[in-house]
Formats: sequence, C-alpha cells, structure tokens
Amino acid sequence: MKSGKFIVIEGLEGAGKSSAVAGVKAWLSANGVQEIVCTREPGGTPLAEKMRSIVKDNTDEILSDKAELLLMYAARVQLVETVIKPALARGAYVIGDRHDLSSQAYQGGGRGIDLTLIQQIKGAVLAGFHPDLTLYMDIDPVLGLQRASARGELDRIEQQAIDFFQRTRATYLSLVAQDPHAYVIDASQTLSEVATQIDQQLTELAEQIL
Amino acid sequence: MKSGKFIVIEGLEGAGKSSAVAGVKAWLSANGVQEIVCTREPGGTPLAEKMRSIVKDNTDEILSDKAELLLMYAARVQLVETVIKPALARGAYVIGDRHDLSSQAYQGGGRGIDLTLIQQIKGAVLAGFHPDLTLYMDIDPVLGLQRASARGELDRIEQQAIDFFQRTRATYLSLVAQDPHAYVIDASQTLSEVATQIDQQLTELAEQIL
Repeated sequence: MKSGKFIVIEGLEGAGKSSAVAGVKAWLSANGVQEIVCTREPGGTPLAEKMRSIVKDNTDEILSDKAELLLMYAARVQLVETVIKPALARGAYVIGDRHDLSSQAYQGGGRGIDLTLIQQIKGAVLAGFHPDLTLYMDIDPVLGLQRASARGELDRIEQQAIDFFQRTRATYLSLVAQDPHAYVIDASQTLSEVATQIDQQLTELAEQIL
Repeated sequence: MKSGKFIVIEGLEGAGKSSAVAGVKAWLSANGVQEIVCTREPGGTPLAEKMRSIVKDNTDEILSDKAELLLMYAARVQLVETVIKPALARGAYVIGDRHDLSSQAYQGGGRGIDLTLIQQIKGAVLAGFHPDLTLYMDIDPVLGLQRASARGELDRIEQQAIDFFQRTRATYLSLVAQDPHAYVIDASQTLSEVATQIDQQLTELAEQIL
C-alpha cells in the first residue's frame, strides 16, 4: 500500500496555524485523500497531553530550559511512535500542528539552547524521521501576539517577552531556508488571502504530495 | 564556602535503597554534616513528580521506550538544576535515591536502548555533572522483587519480566565496575549486615567524602 504523507504547519502564536490546518485538510480531501489524521504538538496522545500540560501550565516552579526541551522531545517521540508512523504506514495523511522545527525555533532560537545540542537529541531519538512538507506561517510577533491574546489568557510560553519571539521567528526563517521541503506563507495577510496562498502552494507541489 | 557532596544510592526494586539512604544520612550526621537534603528520582520537585507519574503509572497507552528515557532525563535535569546544584552550592550534602546510573541500567540494559545514545543525551543535558559517590545495592532480582511485592502493588516498571531486571542488574554491575566513585554493597544480607557494610564503606572513604 502507498504510504501517506506528513504535512506540518509551523509558526508563532497567532500565526493562524489552526486555519492553515483546516485549509490543508480541505485541499487534501478535494484531491482525493481519504484518511486524514490531525495532530498537535506537544500532545496528541493522552500521555503526550500530560507532558504538554507540564510544559504549558503556569506554576510557581520554574521549569528548566533543558527539561522543557526534553519534555518536548518525549512528547514528540510518543506521538510519532504511537500515532504518526502507524497512520502513515496504513496510507493515511497526517497534518501536524507543530513538529520538530518548533523545538529548534523556540528552545534553540527563543531560549538560546545550542542548536547542535538540540539536533543531537533529535538525531538520537527521531532517527531521521521528518515531514514530507512544512508550511511555515510567518508573522511579526507583535501582530501574532495581538491575535493570540484576543483569544484569551496566555499560557506559560506565550507570556515570554517580545524579543523571545523575535529570536524564535529569526530561527524559524533560517531553518526553513535550509529545508528543501519547507515553504514560507505570509501569515500577516487576511484569512482568505492566506488560504489562497496555501492552496496555491499545495497545488504547485501536488505531484510531490499526492 | 566548601561545596557539599552528592551521594547516590542505586539498585533494583527491593534492594533496600530507602534503608541505605537512612544509613548514609545517619553516618553523615554523626560525622558533623549539618544540612542533608534527600532526593528521589525520577521526581523530587512538583514538576518532576508529574513526570514521574507519567513514567510510573499503569495506563492503557504504551509509553514508548525513548519517550520514557527522555522523561527520565527531563525529570533529572529539573531536579539537578532546581534542587541538587543549589543545595551543593550552599554546602549541603545531597543523598539521591537513584540518579543517572538508573537510566543507563534500566533504559539501556533493561529496555535495550543503545547505551551510546543514552550517554549522548546525558552529555548534552548534564554537562559533566556527576555524583561524588555511588553505592550500588546489589541484589538478585528474584529476591528483590519478592521484597518489593511484599510492600504492595507493583508499578508499571516493576511489572516487567524477570529477564528485564537481570539485564538491568548486569548493566549496573558493568557500569559500577567502570566508575571509580561507585561501590557495590551486597544487599542480599540482613538489614543490619547491610547497614554495617555501608558504615564501613563510608568510613573507608571518609577523607574523600567529608
């Protein structure tokens, strides 16, 4: 049986990742893909969601940067092994709301953990597993956080200072530029303009994706 | 100020680690150590205890071996950064109920994860931090599990088959043999005989420890 594809949506808070996931899902359905599995990271399984809540919840105890990084990878490995790989193996398509670039951008760029160290852990536990396509929803963090805070209370990570997100964005852009399977979507535009960009990008790549 | 020392008790389920911790604590007190902090791994802080419960609780979802390994290191880094290092820096002694050898023995020996991979993660996140002294409480797993099950219901890890623990013990013994700061205590003896061994070992090492 033909194996499925793993398509990842990346971006800062308020970049419109959920709408992008919906757009990719609609495009895949319209193009004949029958089974589509949507995941989010960190999380996506009951155990990985418990790890997510350790990372995201506001508490008095300060979570160390390296513990945060390892939790992200623990949740990722759990999701990849128990959900993503089995789905791809049975021919399903998986749309991921965040995946590995998030750890490199947030924990590497944002927190300042050495990217080589992050990539060592990634190499050690993911053993070459990577998305077939990544769409990075690029947005200025000032605008993104305005959108995100309009949705409600900010979680522990969303409460970082603006320069944290500026470093995260810069790292995203640099990593996407090095990844032949990653593309930038201008997420500062209106919802319908962004949707059109996504459709066009997917249509251009249709031969690779379908 | 003189920095404290980090003394770790290692061993299989039922090896008598809690009694050993009490014995080390009593010896240190009798030898003039004023502040003694006891920790356990995985756990020892509110966030690390949440990670512990993900690893230890019995659930329907199978936790992947690599996710388990990363959770162990996330909990360890959190404990080292927020409890152990600050305690040592203020001159306190720390007695750890388990530390890094556990991950190498259980996840490496028991689960069969490549030890090189584990040591890569260790090197990446612990950056050379290691105990000043390790006492490995050696026991045949058949006897150890008899003792442990007499205490009550077994957790997810304690429910592994006996050959899991045999591999774990063999790895412990091999690692302890390579570590110049680690010593084997024969934990198959009676409580009072074990206590005598621990006292003798500490007294022999008194110049290094105190």
